[in-house]
Amino acid sequence: MTASKADETTEDIVEATYCALCECGYAGLTMQDIADRSEASKSSLHYHYDTKHDLLLAFLDHLFESFADRFETDSDADPLDRFGALVDEVLDDSDDEARRDFRTAMLEIKAQAPYDEAFRERLTEFDDHVRECVRSVVADGVESGVFRADADPEATAEFVATVFDGAHTRAISTDSGLAHARRALADYVERDLLADGVDREVEFA
Amino acid sequence: MTASKADETTEDIVEATYCALCECGYAGLTMQDIADRSEASKSSLHYHYDTKHDLLLAFLDHLFESFADRFETDSDADPLDRFGALVDEVLDDSDDEARRDFRTAMLEIKAQAPYDEAFRERLTEFDDHVRECVRSVVADGVESGVFRADADPEATAEFVATVFDGAHTRAISTDSGLAHARRALADYVERDLLADGVDREVEFA
Repeated sequence: MTASKADETTEDIVEATYCALCECGYAGLTMQDIADRSEASKSSLHYHYDTKHDLLLAFLDHLFESFADRFETDSDADPLDRFGALVDEVLDDSDDEARRDFRTAMLEIKAQAPYDEAFRERLTEFDDHVRECVRSVVADGVESGVFRADADPEATAEFVATVFDGAHTRAISTDSGLAHARRALADYVERDLLADGVDREVEFA
Repeated sequence: MTASKADETTEDIVEATYCALCECGYAGLTMQDIADRSEASKSSLHYHYDTKHDLLLAFLDHLFESFADRFETDSDADPLDRFGALVDEVLDDSDDEARRDFRTAMLEIKAQAPYDEAFRERLTEFDDHVRECVRSVVADGVESGVFRADADPEATAEFVATVFDGAHTRAISTDSGLAHARRALADYVERDLLADGVDREVEFA
């Protein structure tokens, strides 16, 4: 198989796994559910991945790499714009049923982490990267003067990662949406991060 | 059955359900797992509760009532002390394996909420009560002058409830603990809630 053909296959399987997780959830997911949404047959899926667990790990790796490509920790872009883009991506509240269903499947996977070291490793890696993104945004903002000199990049990163996860969990398990968390983070940035005298509107809409 | 005998039975079943959730998790939990940890037989459990789902709903109701009894929204106690007690309770990081296992089972239940309206109702009720506790603490603190006059009880309550949920989710799904969230909330109270000139140490240890 050529490299690009292999990429196409991977892309197709990742897409099929995403759709299957959205439509079937995590708990009852089968290789057949994924094959049904893929160009690949079930036996071809098994050729690429020994077990459903292996396939899901590859899926999480792909998800993480795609996120890491879009949100690099090293960037010349404006720190406040980068913060906004990250919030927009993670707390996307558009009326998209698939995204909501996917977040639900991800929460099911998170709840498995204590029983599944490989899931836990991937989720920790993802969390590390999100924190590293926030840390670098805050550090760059302090350096450029848009954020207060005493802003703490490490503590801010922990806090923001916690708010991200809490917003998702509450949106899934209660009648709460994601909009309040976006507003709360905008308030937080304005009140606790922006340097005095910086006239920038903070709105994570 | 006398009232106190009925209370004892309920107490025993609640305790057995707690232990079974800690030891077996939510996904594979059976009535037998609960009966094994109870004075009651499996058939007696079925006499009280038609299904495992009914029993779990009664368990969640009991958990909620017990929490609501301990954390009333109406209290004469010092607002900052009440805030601290709430943080201590929700983000208890003591090295207690059972509490950790229980939080994991609760996250599994939260991940079921989109598929289970009765779970979702209970979790929303719980979330409402936590927010109401924070709201009343902040409102009372503003009134007594310990918190800033411009502190927003509603927005603070949403924010704190989000941090609580996020701290639990991250502690379960990654290598993160709960200590950072307690510190972050203490910083938040000191920086954004305490009125100028109020000399109170904020430490949620």
